Amino acid sequence: MKKYLIITINLWLVSTHLMAQRPPRLSSPDVHVDHGITFRYYAPNAQEVMLHGEFLNEPMAMTKDDEGVWTVTVPPVQPDIYPYFFKEDGVQLADPNNPYIFANERFKRSMVEVPGDEPLMHSLQDVPHGKIHYRYYHSFTLDTTRQLLVYTPPGFDMQGGKKYPVLYLIHGGSDTEETWTKVGKAHLIADNLIAQGKAEPMLIVMPYGNVRPKPMPDFTKDVINDIIPFVEQNYPVIKDSRHRAVAGFSVGGGQTLNIGLTHTDMFAYVCSYAPYTATEEFKENFTEWSPDAKKMNEQLVLFTISVGTEDFLYESVKENIAMFTKKNIEVEPLIVSGGHTWMNCKLFLTNSLQQLFK
Amino acid sequence: MKKYLIITINLWLVSTHLMAQRPPRLSSPDVHVDHGITFRYYAPNAQEVMLHGEFLNEPMAMTKDDEGVWTVTVPPVQPDIYPYFFKEDGVQLADPNNPYIFANERFKRSMVEVPGDEPLMHSLQDVPHGKIHYRYYHSFTLDTTRQLLVYTPPGFDMQGGKKYPVLYLIHGGSDTEETWTKVGKAHLIADNLIAQGKAEPMLIVMPYGNVRPKPMPDFTKDVINDIIPFVEQNYPVIKDSRHRAVAGFSVGGGQTLNIGLTHTDMFAYVCSYAPYTATEEFKENFTEWSPDAKKMNEQLVLFTISVGTEDFLYESVKENIAMFTKKNIEVEPLIVSGGHTWMNCKLFLTNSLQQLFK
Repeated sequence: MKKYLIITINLWLVSTHLMAQRPPRLSSPDVHVDHGITFRYYAPNAQEVMLHGEFLNEPMAMTKDDEGVWTVTVPPVQPDIYPYFFKEDGVQLADPNNPYIFANERFKRSMVEVPGDEPLMHSLQDVPHGKIHYRYYHSFTLDTTRQLLVYTPPGFDMQGGKKYPVLYLIHGGSDTEETWTKVGKAHLIADNLIAQGKAEPMLIVMPYGNVRPKPMPDFTKDVINDIIPFVEQNYPVIKDSRHRAVAGFSVGGGQTLNIGLTHTDMFAYVCSYAPYTATEEFKENFTEWSPDAKKMNEQLVLFTISVGTEDFLYESVKENIAMFTKKNIEVEPLIVSGGHTWMNCKLFLTNSLQQLFK
Repeated sequence: MKKYLIITINLWLVSTHLMAQRPPRLSSPDVHVDHGITFRYYAPNAQEVMLHGEFLNEPMAMTKDDEGVWTVTVPPVQPDIYPYFFKEDGVQLADPNNPYIFANERFKRSMVEVPGDEPLMHSLQDVPHGKIHYRYYHSFTLDTTRQLLVYTPPGFDMQGGKKYPVLYLIHGGSDTEETWTKVGKAHLIADNLIAQGKAEPMLIVMPYGNVRPKPMPDFTKDVINDIIPFVEQNYPVIKDSRHRAVAGFSVGGGQTLNIGLTHTDMFAYVCSYAPYTATEEFKENFTEWSPDAKKMNEQLVLFTISVGTEDFLYESVKENIAMFTKKNIEVEPLIVSGGHTWMNCKLFLTNSLQQLFK
C-alpha cells in the first residue's frame, strides 16, 4: 500500500480556465409563502434581462442593482411546477443558480415549484415511495442500445410473486425519457395516488420516443417489438391487454394513438394528451380507416383524449375526437383550460392513473 | 365511457407565448471520425460567440453564416467526455441543441462524448448492464427527504440471497446526486469492469452531498446515521467494514476523508479524489490529530488519494498526503496529469473499482 504511482496520461489539450469563471451564488428562484416568486440573475454587463415563464402572460423586465444582479418578483401564482427562462440581451438561457432543469433536447429551461398550502398531487409527500430504474435495452428495430425509465411502485418486489400491470408513458416531441419524471413528476403522482388508494400499484415505463428522421412508424415497432418484450422479460408483469396501457403527450400523444389504436388487442387503455397528429403515420393509419368499432369498443376499457382549450392543438384535437366519434369509436374527452403545457400533463396523468386497471 | 367532461381549472395566469420562440434545430455537437468536433449555435443578433471547453487551452471564436448560425470546428481531441459551453456576447450558456447536460447547481454546461477507436471504459458497450435506482430516503439528521441514486450490478436480485459490498460515492461541491452517473458514467464504468472480471459486483450509492450552510459535519452524520442505515435496510448488502467503501471528488473528496478516516471501523476502503480540505471539519478532525496509525493501517485495506498535476488543488493535496504520511498512515497516492476535471474523475474511479473488495 506504499507504492507511489506516477501515471502520465497523454492529454493532448489540458485546460483549467473554466474554473475561475464562476459567477456569485444567488438564491433563485425564491418562492414566497404568498406564492409570489423572486428571480435573480448575475449579469453586470447586460443591457436588458427579461423573465419568460409559463406563469406569465408576457415576459417581465428584470432590474439591475449596483452589483450587477438582476431581480424581479412575480406576484402570486397558482401553485404548480412551471418552466421559465431568462433572456439576456436577446439570448435565452436557463437560470444558472437553479439545478432543476427541464429535460429537453431543444431548449434549456429551468423549473420552479410553487407548493400549495395543501400538498399537491405531484408534491413530495410523506408516503411510501417507489423507485425509478434507469435501464438500457437493445432496440433491434433501431439497431441501437437505448435508455428507458421504469417506475416501480412502493413495495415492489422483483421476485415476490406478485405481477403488475404496466403503463407505457411517452414524452413530447423534443423531450427525453426523463421528462415525465423530471418535469411531469409521474413517480410522485403515482406514489401519492397509490398511497391514497386511488390508483392501482403499477409499473410505468418511460421510453425515449424520438426516432429521427422518421419518428412514428419506427417508434411503434420499437415499442411493440423491443420495449414490451424487454419489460416483460425483465419485470413481473401481467401480459394481457387488460393490464397494459399506453399514454403520451403531444408528439407522444400522437404516438399513443398510432400505437394503441392499431393494437387494441394489446392495449385496453389508450390515453392521449394534446396529441400532435400531423404525421405520415397518423394519416396512413386513420385517413381511410374503417375500424370494426364494435370490436374495438369491447377491447378498449378506456380511450381518452385530453386537451386544454388554449392549447395550440385544440382545434386539431377536437377534429380528431370528432373523427373517432364519427367512426363510432367510444372516446372520452377531457377538456380543461390551459395550454400545451406540462402543468396540464400532470393533471391529465393524475386523471388517467385513477382510471387504469380497474 | 361516453361522458363528456368539461373541467374548468382556475389558472390565474395562462400563457402560450413560449411555444413560438423555438430556434431552428441544429446538429451540435458533431463528432467526426478523426475526433474533431463541430459546434453550431443559432444567434442571428449576436456580435460574438465563443466556444469554451475542457478540451481547449483557451476559448475559440465561432463564425456566423448568412442564416445566423455560428460554427466552429475543433481539431482532433483525446477521446473522452468533456464539458463545454458557449459565450454569446459575454453570456454563458449550454448548447441548446444538446440534451446532454452537466448535472450541477451553479452552472449550465453541455457535455460532448468523443468515442475512442476502441471503446473506452466509460463507453456504453454490449455487456450486461446494471440499473440505477432513483430513491428517496428520510434524513433525520437534516430533517428532510432527499434523493439518492443506487447502482445495482448486472444480475442483481433484491431477494436472491446474494449479498453485496457497497461503495458510497460523493460528487463535487456544486454537483448533484446525478453527477457521478450523468458526467462520471460510474454505472457504465462499473458495468464494463465487472464484465471484464476486473471489478467485483457491488452496489454504488450516490447521495446528494450538499448541505447548506455548513456542509461537512452534517453530511458526515447524514451518511453515518441515515444513508447507511437506509441502504442496509433496503438492499442485500454485507454490513462490515471490509465490504464498505467511501469515495468522492473535490468537496466530496474532503467529505470522503472526514467520513472515512473518522470511521475506519466502518470503512476499510477510503478513496479521495482531488480533495478540497479547506473546511472547518477537516481542520477539527486532522489539525491536532494523533491517530493510532498501526490500528488504522490494519483497518484500512486501501486508503488512496488521487490528483492531477494541473489540478488547482495539487499543492494542497500533496500537503495532505505528506501530513498523513507523517502521521504514519499508509496512503497510496495516484498522481496523473490533468486538472480538476471529471475526465480525471472517471480515471480515478476506474482505478478504485479495480481495487475494492478484493
